[in-house]
Amino acid sequence: MLKNSADYALRRRAEQVIPGGMWGHMDARKLPDGYPQFFSKAHGSRLWDADGNEYVDFMCAWGPMVLGHGNPAIEEAVRRQVAMGDCMNGPGEVMVELAELLTRTIPHADWVLFQKNGTDATTACVTIARAATGRSKILVAKGSYHGAAPWCTPVMNGVTEQDRANLVYFEYNDCESLRQARDRAGKDFAGILVTPIRHDMGREVELANPEFVRCARELCDTDQAPLIIDDVRAGFRLHLGGSWEPYGVRPDLSAWSKAIANGRALAAVTGREWLREAVRSIFVTGSFWYGAASMAAAVATIRTLRDTDGIGRMKTMGERLRSGLDALARKHGVALRQTGPAQMPLVLFEDDPDFEKGNLFCAIALRNGAYFHPRHNMFLSAAHSEDDIDHALEAADAGLRAVAEAAGV
Amino acid sequence: MLKNSADYALRRRAEQVIPGGMWGHMDARKLPDGYPQFFSKAHGSRLWDADGNEYVDFMCAWGPMVLGHGNPAIEEAVRRQVAMGDCMNGPGEVMVELAELLTRTIPHADWVLFQKNGTDATTACVTIARAATGRSKILVAKGSYHGAAPWCTPVMNGVTEQDRANLVYFEYNDCESLRQARDRAGKDFAGILVTPIRHDMGREVELANPEFVRCARELCDTDQAPLIIDDVRAGFRLHLGGSWEPYGVRPDLSAWSKAIANGRALAAVTGREWLREAVRSIFVTGSFWYGAASMAAAVATIRTLRDTDGIGRMKTMGERLRSGLDALARKHGVALRQTGPAQMPLVLFEDDPDFEKGNLFCAIALRNGAYFHPRHNMFLSAAHSEDDIDHALEAADAGLRAVAEAAGV
Repeated sequence: MLKNSADYALRRRAEQVIPGGMWGHMDARKLPDGYPQFFSKAHGSRLWDADGNEYVDFMCAWGPMVLGHGNPAIEEAVRRQVAMGDCMNGPGEVMVELAELLTRTIPHADWVLFQKNGTDATTACVTIARAATGRSKILVAKGSYHGAAPWCTPVMNGVTEQDRANLVYFEYNDCESLRQARDRAGKDFAGILVTPIRHDMGREVELANPEFVRCARELCDTDQAPLIIDDVRAGFRLHLGGSWEPYGVRPDLSAWSKAIANGRALAAVTGREWLREAVRSIFVTGSFWYGAASMAAAVATIRTLRDTDGIGRMKTMGERLRSGLDALARKHGVALRQTGPAQMPLVLFEDDPDFEKGNLFCAIALRNGAYFHPRHNMFLSAAHSEDDIDHALEAADAGLRAVAEAAGV
Repeated sequence: MLKNSADYALRRRAEQVIPGGMWGHMDARKLPDGYPQFFSKAHGSRLWDADGNEYVDFMCAWGPMVLGHGNPAIEEAVRRQVAMGDCMNGPGEVMVELAELLTRTIPHADWVLFQKNGTDATTACVTIARAATGRSKILVAKGSYHGAAPWCTPVMNGVTEQDRANLVYFEYNDCESLRQARDRAGKDFAGILVTPIRHDMGREVELANPEFVRCARELCDTDQAPLIIDDVRAGFRLHLGGSWEPYGVRPDLSAWSKAIANGRALAAVTGREWLREAVRSIFVTGSFWYGAASMAAAVATIRTLRDTDGIGRMKTMGERLRSGLDALARKHGVALRQTGPAQMPLVLFEDDPDFEKGNLFCAIALRNGAYFHPRHNMFLSAAHSEDDIDHALEAADAGLRAVAEAAGV
C-alpha cells in the first residue's frame, strides 16, 4: 500500500475510530499486500478503489451482487418503492408478492419468513427446528460457516461454552460421521444444518456427494427432525429452486440471503408445511425486517435471474474463466487446482500450503485489473461479459507468469 | 377489518405464504380491530394504509423514522451514495466519516463497530464484554427487551436452557436487586446490560432513577466489567450523546440502531478505549454490514438532528400532544396515565387492566386519522408539526369521548 494513496490515508483515519481500522470478512489485512480496503465506485462487473483503480470484480461484495453493481432494473424497482415508502408501521404489498414468488420458485417452500442477515436466517432455522421437535441438538459440519453469532462464529473469543452446547459435529460428505453425530445427539436430535456445498475457506470446494445428501435426508426423515440447508452463500447462484434440487433431495428448511436482493439487506427462511406451526410459535423480529425497498429489490432480482437465465450466463462466464486459467497455467507450467461450481470458483495452487503462490498470483492480477481472492471461493455475476473474462485472463496471465518465475519454472 | 378492503385481501394472500400471515412486533393482530396490516405510502409525519386511509404516524415504523418518512436530505444523501456504489468489496469512505461523526457526537465513544439490526448490536456488546473480562454472566433487567435472538427473545419456544444460562436477572430501578444479581454472578460477573429507560410493553414508562444509574456504574467499576446501555430504542431521540448523558454517567459500551439512519438498516456499537482490544479479538460480521448507502443515511440523519435541533423539536411536539391529551381527558372525565419522555410517549388509562379503554381509544382515534399504540411507547419525529398534533388531538377527542361514553361518564 503506497503511503501517499487515498486508501492508506483512510486506513490511518479508520484506525482511530474503529478497532483495528476494520473487522470481519472484508478486512483487507487478510489479503495480499496491495489489496485496497476502501472502494469509491461500482458499476456492473467493475469496481473502483478509493484511489480510482478499476477492477473486474470476482467477489461481487462476497456474493450479493448477483446481477452486477447498480443493475438498472433493480435500482428502478427500489426507486419506485422508496418513492412510496420503505420502513413503515407494517409491510407493503410487496412482502406478499415476494413471498408468493419465492414459494412458486422454490419447490420445498410452502411459506417464507424474512430477516436482514444470513445469521438471522440460520439462527431462525435452528430455533424453528427446536420449537418443532422439542429437542435441542443440531448437527453441523466441522469447519462450516453458518454466520457470526456466538452459537456459530468461527472465533471463540467472547463465546461461552453454553453457546455451543447444543451443536454436534460431523465431517462434511461423510455419511458414517453424520450417523455417528446423530447417535451422539441421542433423543435430543433436533435437526441437521448443512451447507449445500463444502465451501470452507482455504480448502478446495467440494460438491456434496449424493450418498451424503441421501444419508442426511434419511436421518432427518427417520426422526422427523428438519433437514436445514444453509443456502446463504450459494443460494440463487446454483439453482433458483435451492442448491440441492439437482439431487432431487429437498430440505425442510432453507436459509437464504446474500444474492436475494442484489445487495440490499435481506434474508429469508423457507420451509415446509409441517413446520408452519413451529414458526408461529417462536418470536423473531427486527426493526428493519419489514422494509419494502429491499423486498422490491428481491422481487426484481429473482424475476430477472429467472427471465434472463442469469444462472446460465454466470455459469458460462465462469467456465470461460476456468478454461482460460487452465490454458494459461499450462502455458506457464504452473499446476492449478480449480474447484467449485463455475459460478463460485476457487483457484488454489498445487504445493502451496501457505498460499504464497496464490497470494503472489492475486497481487499481480490485482495490479493488472482483476480482483480475485486467494483462499475464498469467488463469485461471478450475470453482469460479467466475455470482455470482462478476457480482460481478467490477461491480468491472470501476468499473475501466473510471476508465479512461474518465482518458482524458477 | 372490512372484508372488501385491500388490507383484508392482502392478509388472506399472506396467510397462504407466511405462517400466520405475519409475525414479529408489527403483527397487527396484536392491535385493536381496524388497525391495518399493510401500508402503501408514507411521507413526513403521515402514512397511508393499503386502502388509502391517511394517518398522522405516532409509531414512526416503531422508531426508525426520526426525521419523518422520505426526508429529502436523507434521501438525497442515499441517492448520491447509491449512484456511486453501495455493497462493494469493502466499505466506502463514508464508513470512516460516520465513525468519526459518532465518536465526536457521543462522549463515551472512542470507537465504533457497525451492524444491521439492534439484536446484532446488543449481541456484539455482550460478546465484547465477555471477551474483555474472560467472564460469562451478564446482568439484565426482568422484562427488558434486548432483541429477538435465542439469548434474549421474550418468547421461549425454540430456545434452549443453555441459551439463557449466562443471564442473571434484576429488577429495573432497584439498586439492591442489582447488587444481589451481581453477587449471584460471583466471580463470573461480565457486565450489566440495561435500557436507559424502562420501556417494557404494557406498563408505564419509568425513567431510570439517579441512584440506580450510579449503582450500576459503581458495580461495573468495582470489577472492571462493562456497563452496557441498550440505546437501540431511545438512542438519538433523548440525547445525541447517549440517553444517560443527562445523569453524567457514561457507559463502557452502547448499542444503537432504529433511529440511526432514518429507516435504513444500520446498527452500531460504541465503546471506550479499554475495550478496543476485546473488539479486535472477536469475530462478528454480515454480508451487508459494510454497505455504504445506509452509512450515508446515518451521516445525514445525525447531522440533521444536530443542526436543526431535531430532538428539541420532537420534545416540543410531544409536549403539545401530552398537554392536549390531558386537557381532553379532563374534558371527558377520563383518567389518563401519560408516561415516558415526551418524544417517546406512552398513554395508558387508569383502571384498565386489560387495555379495553386503551384499545377503544386507539381504534376510534385511528378511524379519525391518528395512528397511536395502546400498550407500547410511541415515537415522535422531527417532521411532526403543530398541525399534525392538532389533527391528532381531534382524533383523540373522538377516542376519549368513546371511552367516556363506554364507561358511562
